[in-house]
Amino acid sequence: MKDIAIGVDIGGTFTKVGMVDKEGDVLADAIIKTSDYPEVDKFMANLHHSIQKLIDQAGAVNVIGVGIGAPNGNYYKGTIEFAPNLNWKGVIPFVELSRKHLDVTTVLTNDANAAAVGEKIYGGARNMSDFIVITLGTGLGSGLFVNGKLVYGYDGFAGELGHVTVNMEGRICGCGRRGCLETYASATGIRRTAFELMADRTIPSELRKYSFENLDAELIFNAAEKGDQLALEAFHITGKILGTKLADTVVHTSPEAIFLFGGLAKAGNLILEPTKKSMEAHLLEVFKNKVKILPSELTKKNAAILGSSALVWQEITLKQT
Amino acid sequence: MKDIAIGVDIGGTFTKVGMVDKEGDVLADAIIKTSDYPEVDKFMANLHHSIQKLIDQAGAVNVIGVGIGAPNGNYYKGTIEFAPNLNWKGVIPFVELSRKHLDVTTVLTNDANAAAVGEKIYGGARNMSDFIVITLGTGLGSGLFVNGKLVYGYDGFAGELGHVTVNMEGRICGCGRRGCLETYASATGIRRTAFELMADRTIPSELRKYSFENLDAELIFNAAEKGDQLALEAFHITGKILGTKLADTVVHTSPEAIFLFGGLAKAGNLILEPTKKSMEAHLLEVFKNKVKILPSELTKKNAAILGSSALVWQEITLKQT
Repeated sequence: MKDIAIGVDIGGTFTKVGMVDKEGDVLADAIIKTSDYPEVDKFMANLHHSIQKLIDQAGAVNVIGVGIGAPNGNYYKGTIEFAPNLNWKGVIPFVELSRKHLDVTTVLTNDANAAAVGEKIYGGARNMSDFIVITLGTGLGSGLFVNGKLVYGYDGFAGELGHVTVNMEGRICGCGRRGCLETYASATGIRRTAFELMADRTIPSELRKYSFENLDAELIFNAAEKGDQLALEAFHITGKILGTKLADTVVHTSPEAIFLFGGLAKAGNLILEPTKKSMEAHLLEVFKNKVKILPSELTKKNAAILGSSALVWQEITLKQT
Repeated sequence: MKDIAIGVDIGGTFTKVGMVDKEGDVLADAIIKTSDYPEVDKFMANLHHSIQKLIDQAGAVNVIGVGIGAPNGNYYKGTIEFAPNLNWKGVIPFVELSRKHLDVTTVLTNDANAAAVGEKIYGGARNMSDFIVITLGTGLGSGLFVNGKLVYGYDGFAGELGHVTVNMEGRICGCGRRGCLETYASATGIRRTAFELMADRTIPSELRKYSFENLDAELIFNAAEKGDQLALEAFHITGKILGTKLADTVVHTSPEAIFLFGGLAKAGNLILEPTKKSMEAHLLEVFKNKVKILPSELTKKNAAILGSSALVWQEITLKQT
C-alpha cells in the first residue's frame, strides 16, 4: 500500500483537493466551489465525499493525513479565524470538524505557510534549513523556516510580511493601515503602481486602454514582455520596493534563500532581477552576495495542493524527531 | 562538586569573566583590559590564567563549559570576524584557541545573542519559547528566539536588527549605509536626536551646555528625570522610532515578548512607554495587545557575564534533546 497525503487548498471561490505521494506526484485531484456553501458543515461533508472518491478510485493507498491551507488558518488551534473572503464567519474549528469524517493526522495553516512547507518537502528548499517563501498573489504572504522548522510564533500568526511598512504615508491597505508591503508587491500592488505611472507619465502604453477593474498582473506582464516601457517600469518599481524590505527581513533570520511563489512570481526575471538588485543594494555588508532570490520550484498547476499535502509529511517528520 | 559555567564577555576596552552556577549566581569574577593585548595569543593566555585562578579559589567545582560573548562572534565557526573595536584583525578562531587551554564545551556568539540566551536561562524569558531581546548600548543588537532556540540563520549572523532601515535618506551609520535603526535607537542614537532637537528648537535645556563628545545617554536620562523638556522629547522620539520598527519585527516571528536590555533600557518607562505605544499603534490588528514590551531581568552589574555563561547551559540542553 502506497502512503499518500491529502492536500486541501481552501480559497474564497474554489477549494482544490488532491492525493499526493511522498515524491510530490499528484495522483488525483478535484475541485469544489467554496462559495456555494454558506455553511461549513455542508462544505465539510462534500469535501470528504470528494476525498473518499479520490481514495476509492486510487485503490490500495494508505492515507497518512490531511493537510489544509486556508486563509487566516491557525496551526496551533486548527481553526480558520475571521477569514474575510470566506462565507463562514467567526472562528471555525476546521480540523476538529474534518477529523469527524476522517480521523487521521490533520494539519492546518495559512496558504503561504503551506507553500513554504511545500518548497521544503518537494521544491527548491529540500536541503535548506533556513529560508523564506514569499507568495505574490492578490496579497503578499510569507512562510519563514528557521532551524528546519516553519516559524509559527507565539500565537501561530508569524510570517505576515505583507504587512511590514514601506511608507507610513503610503497606500491604504486592506488591513486598515497605510503603506504595507502588499499594497506594492503583489498582483494588486503592481496594478496600483501601473495606474500611478499612467497618471504621472506621458509615454504611450497599451495599459492605458484598460479600466482599473479590468487590468491585472497578467496583462501588465504581457505588455512588459512586448517591451511596453510603462509596464516594464511597473515591474521595476515593484521589485525595487520588495528588495528593500527583503533586506530588512534578511537581518532578522539570515536565510539561505528567498523563494518567490505565485501569480506575480511567474513573471520570472522581470520581477526576480530588480528584487535581487535592490535587496543587494540595501543589505548589511555581512549578508551581501550570500542570499539567493529564487523562483519557487512548485510551479505546476497543482502548487497549492502540493503545499497543503506537504504539511502532512512535515508533521510526521516532526513527530519522529 | 557544584556544576559551574564560565562566562566571558569581550569588549573593546575590557573583558569580563565570571564563574556562574545554574541559578545565575556569579560566584567570582575578574576583569582583563582587552586593549592591552595587541596579540590574541597573549590575551588568551592571560584570560585562562584568570579563569584558572577563579576555579582554584572556588575549590570543588566542576567546569561544564565556557560561554563567550564577543563582537562579530560567529556561533557556527567559533570565530570572531573582523571586529572593528578589537585589536585582533581578520578572522580569529577564538574557540579553537580557548580549547587549547581548557578543553570543555565552548560556545561563542555575539553579545546580543548572549544576552538573549541569558534572558532565557536566568531572566524573564525562562518560560518563553518565542521572544526577542533588544540591547540598547553604543549600537542596537538583538537576539531572536523561535521555537525555544536562538536564531543563528544560515551563516550565523541572524538578528542584526540594528540595521533595519528607518529612513533611506536618514542618518549615516557606522555600517556605511544610511538610516539604520541603531543610528536612532541606541545610546549614541539618542545623543544624535538630542543634538538635532537642540538645533531645531528654541526651548532652554541643560543639555545645551554639553559638547557632542561629552553628552551621553546617562546625562540625557538625568535631565529627563528632572523634567527637562528637550531630554524628555529625545526619549519620546527614540521610543517612537524603535516602536515602529518593532511592529515590523513582530510580523516576522510573532514573539510573546520583546525585552529591552542594556544602557539605554535602564531609563525604564522613559523608553518603554513610548516604545510600546508606538509599536501598538503600528501593529497589524491580529497582533495588537498581545506582545509584551518588558525590561530585561538581567539588570545586575554582571549581566554580560550572565549572558555569556548562559550559552553553556543552553548548549548542554540542546545536546540532550
